[in-house]
Amino acid sequence: MRNIALRLAYDGTAYHGWQAQKNAVTVSQTLQKALGEVTGEVVRVTGCGRTDAGVHARTYVANFYTNSQIPADRLPYAVNVRLPRDIAVYRAAEVSDDFHSTFSATAKEYTYFIRRGRIHDPFLINRAHFYPQEPDIERMRAAAAEMVGEHDFAALRSVGSNVKTTVRTMHEIEITEDGETVAIRMKANGFLYNMARAIAGTLVYVSEGKLEPTDIPALLKSKNRTAAGPTLPACGLYMTGVWYPNDII
Amino acid sequence: MRNIALRLAYDGTAYHGWQAQKNAVTVSQTLQKALGEVTGEVVRVTGCGRTDAGVHARTYVANFYTNSQIPADRLPYAVNVRLPRDIAVYRAAEVSDDFHSTFSATAKEYTYFIRRGRIHDPFLINRAHFYPQEPDIERMRAAAAEMVGEHDFAALRSVGSNVKTTVRTMHEIEITEDGETVAIRMKANGFLYNMARAIAGTLVYVSEGKLEPTDIPALLKSKNRTAAGPTLPACGLYMTGVWYPNDII
Repeated sequence: MRNIALRLAYDGTAYHGWQAQKNAVTVSQTLQKALGEVTGEVVRVTGCGRTDAGVHARTYVANFYTNSQIPADRLPYAVNVRLPRDIAVYRAAEVSDDFHSTFSATAKEYTYFIRRGRIHDPFLINRAHFYPQEPDIERMRAAAAEMVGEHDFAALRSVGSNVKTTVRTMHEIEITEDGETVAIRMKANGFLYNMARAIAGTLVYVSEGKLEPTDIPALLKSKNRTAAGPTLPACGLYMTGVWYPNDII
Repeated sequence: MRNIALRLAYDGTAYHGWQAQKNAVTVSQTLQKALGEVTGEVVRVTGCGRTDAGVHARTYVANFYTNSQIPADRLPYAVNVRLPRDIAVYRAAEVSDDFHSTFSATAKEYTYFIRRGRIHDPFLINRAHFYPQEPDIERMRAAAAEMVGEHDFAALRSVGSNVKTTVRTMHEIEITEDGETVAIRMKANGFLYNMARAIAGTLVYVSEGKLEPTDIPALLKSKNRTAAGPTLPACGLYMTGVWYPNDII
């Protein structure tokens, strides 16, 4: 069988996340249905991470096994005409048998978008977290700097998935401003469940003076989720990067 | 009575345009309802232009008469909590009795957004016109330059509204690229019905070689709508500016 990897993007607003669920429409099920129509097979896709309901992906990778002989470069067009328009497949590549969208990934990036200012933007409904205050960007940057490097992120995640270790390496956190939008871009070797949203909430906590940037090392050491900031809403979160050896996809 | 002008923005996807219609939800009706709740009066709003179904406004101005004594600076917050989230009022100002959102405007700007490239962007559904080709920006710019100045734009509008003259002055047309998005920004002293979408369609026509940039002067002189390019879809069109004397709103 061939192992095919796909690069896609989706607006997560209408979906109950990536992962297959009973009685709820998910991105993976929608993609599997379209791939099933293209290949004439029952297809099972493996994604690069579980995005929650309402979380978006500017880029996402999934792979599936098939006996179909459709050329990889034709696959995006064949799949897209069978997908709703809030999902788009940009690329497909035949990869080695042992390629796994989650376990082969060398790094991932999420970006959390906050819409500041006193009045919301009609074009950012479900697309950014509306925070009608002025975040203190310098305090947020100082706190973010304390999260970069190898740390136990147990204090900055939701319990709910089985993981061997809660240690992750945060490569960088960059906070940028564009008009009334604040973007928190986080690149790491991996993310725990709700970790990106908990980091964003904790940076907002610091902005509000509920924590000091210098409190972050002790917070991480405490492994105490309740001492950190809230998990911000899903609508502000986008997967914005996932990398593989040799940029195979 | 007080005459109040409002600056607002809306995502037009869910609306049958600005203007009140029977059996269809429009932006003006939705705004009137919210203003009616705030003022306790039957309110009638006058808009700065008729946007069609699906057309958006990054900025838009409307005015209404009221006996309500609510301070203008409180009005946006009072109205916004009564509006759906795809409409937002940013500012309100008390203006002179004779202010009229359409007739007092000194200039207007529309921007038409085209998503190029072979595969659509899930985040631009209903937000840009998907054109799966590579537009020739230089040809479009050359044609646009021929439209700047005072011209009879009868060839670049849809018949359907009564206007005294089809002569308008185009102040500038700027075409910019940002990733896979092409923006055609048009500023004029006024726009005829569907004029912005007909200009965008005609520039695409030129890009495709169906017209030459040097054909534009003769096209304008001909007043022949059928010789120009098509009216592009509403979803790509945004009102992006409307100006008044002394920047009163």
